[in-house]
Amino acid sequence: MRKVVVAGVGMTVFGRFPEKTVEELGAVASLRALKDAGLQPADIQIAYVGNLTEHRVTGHNSCLGQEILKDVGIHKIPITRTEAACASGACAFREAWMAVGSGLYDIALALGVEKLTGAGHAPLTRQGLNINGLAGLHPPGWWASRAVRHMAQYGTTIEQLALVSVKNHANGCLDPYSQFQKKFTVQEIQQSDMIAEPLRTLHMCPISDGGAAAVLCSEEVARRLTTRPVYVAASALTSLTYLQQEDMTFNDLERRAAQQAYEMAALGPEDLAFAEVHDCFTIAEVTRCESLGFCERGEYCHHLEEGKWSLGGKFPVNPSGGLLSKGHPVGATGVAQICELTWHLRGEAGERQVPGATAALGHVSGGTVAGLNGACSVVILKT
Amino acid sequence: MRKVVVAGVGMTVFGRFPEKTVEELGAVASLRALKDAGLQPADIQIAYVGNLTEHRVTGHNSCLGQEILKDVGIHKIPITRTEAACASGACAFREAWMAVGSGLYDIALALGVEKLTGAGHAPLTRQGLNINGLAGLHPPGWWASRAVRHMAQYGTTIEQLALVSVKNHANGCLDPYSQFQKKFTVQEIQQSDMIAEPLRTLHMCPISDGGAAAVLCSEEVARRLTTRPVYVAASALTSLTYLQQEDMTFNDLERRAAQQAYEMAALGPEDLAFAEVHDCFTIAEVTRCESLGFCERGEYCHHLEEGKWSLGGKFPVNPSGGLLSKGHPVGATGVAQICELTWHLRGEAGERQVPGATAALGHVSGGTVAGLNGACSVVILKT
Repeated sequence: MRKVVVAGVGMTVFGRFPEKTVEELGAVASLRALKDAGLQPADIQIAYVGNLTEHRVTGHNSCLGQEILKDVGIHKIPITRTEAACASGACAFREAWMAVGSGLYDIALALGVEKLTGAGHAPLTRQGLNINGLAGLHPPGWWASRAVRHMAQYGTTIEQLALVSVKNHANGCLDPYSQFQKKFTVQEIQQSDMIAEPLRTLHMCPISDGGAAAVLCSEEVARRLTTRPVYVAASALTSLTYLQQEDMTFNDLERRAAQQAYEMAALGPEDLAFAEVHDCFTIAEVTRCESLGFCERGEYCHHLEEGKWSLGGKFPVNPSGGLLSKGHPVGATGVAQICELTWHLRGEAGERQVPGATAALGHVSGGTVAGLNGACSVVILKT
Repeated sequence: MRKVVVAGVGMTVFGRFPEKTVEELGAVASLRALKDAGLQPADIQIAYVGNLTEHRVTGHNSCLGQEILKDVGIHKIPITRTEAACASGACAFREAWMAVGSGLYDIALALGVEKLTGAGHAPLTRQGLNINGLAGLHPPGWWASRAVRHMAQYGTTIEQLALVSVKNHANGCLDPYSQFQKKFTVQEIQQSDMIAEPLRTLHMCPISDGGAAAVLCSEEVARRLTTRPVYVAASALTSLTYLQQEDMTFNDLERRAAQQAYEMAALGPEDLAFAEVHDCFTIAEVTRCESLGFCERGEYCHHLEEGKWSLGGKFPVNPSGGLLSKGHPVGATGVAQICELTWHLRGEAGERQVPGATAALGHVSGGTVAGLNGACSVVILKT
């Protein structure tokens, strides 16, 4: 497979926009990515659109990409919607990468977009199959039991978990695209509403709307567009049936995806400047970073207290604010990470810039609503 | 991009199976394709699953592929759901083709599956955008107006359109996977219930459940598996905003997809032995075959009366029975066409075998429920 370059990125501010349609959010993100790449809509040869829940907002979401992109002036080309729960946008990016990498297309668009406002809640049961549903576990409950187990196994405290939220909300204040623009103290986080013992509201990502897009191209095209290309060094995608999971505090799904990505990029975690990680819950950042190999198992919170994962620390995690502060419009999240990685690798991340970044990692994991099955994407970009 | 081989195919009987889950239908089709390829579940390196409506049956369909394929013994690998309305399965096939063609994977599974029983009807409107909805057009109405226009423009009669249904139902009696196993006369078709003047029930495809799967591999792997490989000669995917359509009797969407596929395969319609075409309505087969270049515009029905498109004729269309007789479990349809093409190219199509077939075409088109935007896939397979 030939090398693929991220030629341009763009996103909308994440937030709650009940008055905006998914078409508007998707079109704005796409136009910004095109502008950033210095390309016109007619230059796009193939497009992928990651979206999960639009059918819950408007009743259907078939050919959503065609609906969104016609407003941008992109039509006639192949447009496919991709879905793997919270990894839907990451899948759009991955298919665009393969389409260019295969040599069949030179310029591809990956769009992730979601309007969760108005989507309501998905049912938690699935006929005859939902063992987690039978056990009464919704996502907060599922992650709460992992938190309790991590505490028992490694002595992790709820205040340490709250520090993840403190860090990410502080970072989010430096990211103009972030939904929250507000710092929180450990006390404030621990005074927010209890949802599933020991996790409170501010240990969880919010309901968000937003879009994010990336234009990918061949090296040859990139030479025309930029003198500082950002390369896709690796893209790995793995699946998991959670019933296979042996240890609640460690995610085999992430471990395998990271291993594959490190091998493909010929880089290890020690070569990375920072990472964007799927922190849908505070405990999720902890177990996922441990699974991705950023530190030893059970050690994330110790390093957290020492500032290793903060901006200015040795290895910032979620400089954008992550899902906790930036927000989590499901389909958009994986592509928004590509935006954040690209900005840092170009030195364009403003106040939150990780200095001298030449390689960085983006991670998303998605599962069914009740968490029975999942998908995990790990992407490494480098200069 | 390197060459890709269809190593194995398999499908369920199409029909109404309210007691079966989408997991069961998908697993059966996948296991049959694996058996046909002479491969084990653990040999599959990447999988794509085409599905449109599962969220309407069970409330959600995120990570549906992971849910289905774990029962087959396929897990840990990349699994992505693809969607482009009725072309969802065709998109799964196309992504699997690119994944192998890129050189990144050697063996891929494309599964299409749908359970329409219990899915009910999708809403016909979309906030502020649905011009067809505003005009009161549901799919039968939309195709009825095309039929009326084709009649006015070319002198096509309703009896000629009924002959499409007669032909496809006769073919379907020779296909053990077909939903109907029943011949109909023009009179019987014209006595079925009127749905949208001039189209009656038997001018339309039924509600169906079913699954279809194909295993794709590199030439190198194929050499181990078979002495009579079937190659993917072309796969084209196009999009359309129907507002761009200038002539209701002619589908620019299909014309462009076919043109691209003929060019990629370096074959013309004259080189093909037969075609499977998306005959969701009798008139759809007519306008689509004319758009795909099988005959001059307005001439399809004359050739139909002369038997050109029948089994035993010069260029059979829908030897499987097509959507009209075989059924149309949306996500499965595009992959079921791959099954049918493969069986004929191997000489394994039994009583409906098109003799000496060395190249054949599969076509599906999908649109939003109200037909505002669409996608069209054209695949050419050859020996």
